[in-house]
Amino acid sequence: MKVARFSQQGGDPRFGIVDGDDLVVLAGDPMFAGFQPLEERVPIADVKLLAPVIPRSKVVCVGLNYSAHAADMGDQGHKAPLIFLKPNTAVVGPGDAIQLPVGVGKIVHEGELVVVIGKIAKQVKAADYADYVFGYTIGNDVSARDLMATDGQWARAKGFDTFAPIGPYIETELDAQNVEITTFVDGEPRRKGNTSEMIHSIPEIIEFVSDVWTLLPGDIIMTGTPAGLGGFLDGQTVEITIEGIGTLSNPARDRA
Amino acid sequence: MKVARFSQQGGDPRFGIVDGDDLVVLAGDPMFAGFQPLEERVPIADVKLLAPVIPRSKVVCVGLNYSAHAADMGDQGHKAPLIFLKPNTAVVGPGDAIQLPVGVGKIVHEGELVVVIGKIAKQVKAADYADYVFGYTIGNDVSARDLMATDGQWARAKGFDTFAPIGPYIETELDAQNVEITTFVDGEPRRKGNTSEMIHSIPEIIEFVSDVWTLLPGDIIMTGTPAGLGGFLDGQTVEITIEGIGTLSNPARDRA
Repeated sequence: MKVARFSQQGGDPRFGIVDGDDLVVLAGDPMFAGFQPLEERVPIADVKLLAPVIPRSKVVCVGLNYSAHAADMGDQGHKAPLIFLKPNTAVVGPGDAIQLPVGVGKIVHEGELVVVIGKIAKQVKAADYADYVFGYTIGNDVSARDLMATDGQWARAKGFDTFAPIGPYIETELDAQNVEITTFVDGEPRRKGNTSEMIHSIPEIIEFVSDVWTLLPGDIIMTGTPAGLGGFLDGQTVEITIEGIGTLSNPARDRA
Repeated sequence: MKVARFSQQGGDPRFGIVDGDDLVVLAGDPMFAGFQPLEERVPIADVKLLAPVIPRSKVVCVGLNYSAHAADMGDQGHKAPLIFLKPNTAVVGPGDAIQLPVGVGKIVHEGELVVVIGKIAKQVKAADYADYVFGYTIGNDVSARDLMATDGQWARAKGFDTFAPIGPYIETELDAQNVEITTFVDGEPRRKGNTSEMIHSIPEIIEFVSDVWTLLPGDIIMTGTPAGLGGFLDGQTVEITIEGIGTLSNPARDRA
């Protein structure tokens, strides 16, 4: 199923299941209330899709998790996954503008498969990972590349407001081990890869991360970006397509 | 006023104001409900003090913000504040055990003055900082020093569950520009400094951080640690005293 979070005419966020061109509205957040469909249906074209989840705690990112991208970055290969954090205030939804701070140098897109955690996960074994996964969505690990080098720590360069677009849907039944991820800027392909090329698999990542940090329902893990060139500018639109989920599209605007 | 968050006999968290040896119980979280004292008083000795706030979004840390400590770390001085994140799942309260992961090398305490943000703060000017501060507490930026070097990124080394003890109270009327911070291990002084020695002052930090990340009510900023030796081990107790606030005490235990 594809789960959407949406609002209509500025109303409170609600949840729905994609059914053709419509959403079947749910009684509550399915992560906590289960899937309780109402009689109500709304055309997707009539709603604003929102970020399908707002993490209560953590946006976890895995760095350098595709060998071709790690080589681009001059990395010799970390034995353990390299993990870092974005704040939940960086999360925006499909169609929302990525606001580019001015004067920070090059800003790049990183299209990634995102794991959405469904229940409290602490010291989970890789073999049990699926019990803790609510579903998968698409994310853009937007990064101010020059600031990453200046600061050394990546929290600022990757954490600006709007630097974590996610959506449009959470797919609860994806076979995540072998899907294509393609990123386009203004329709032109820029990065491409397959999740089968990950250095650390999703079960390994969940075991590793949940040993460090207790994961809460709604926390998300961005699993790394494949190779390719990543720059984008004010006025351009970044689209990330993952087969089986859909396309996440965000325009970029210089920040006021 | 000193604000406490507490529970009695495992009940839900409540809030109170310190009055001598008692807490005057409040009707709700004063950050959102204001200070509405009830008729009820409870002796502090009869309650469990909890972390005085659980950040909804961010535990912001400022690295290398005291020149003597920055020199210890081989830093030549960052022009901009060096900021990074801990997850809110690292927060524990006074008396709670710091759980030391085994096999990660040296773990150090970093006693710090903590700013508690009281309202949404975005692109705040330094001159206006006080409007956004709810109060101040004490924090321990616990850090796995060897992992900081191994990973390069500090999110793991500083983000383990229990690596952000805070408390015991939030003081809403502290003059934070000139207070002593002293850290003890088993009663022996280890680090000492005065907030007047900060490289970046609290108003500057709030201007800088709120330009990168929107701060939400309850978010906290750990403002950096003064110089001194920081290691501690299973079975030891770390105490951090800040004049005008009190003492944060946490035992350390090897993690299961």
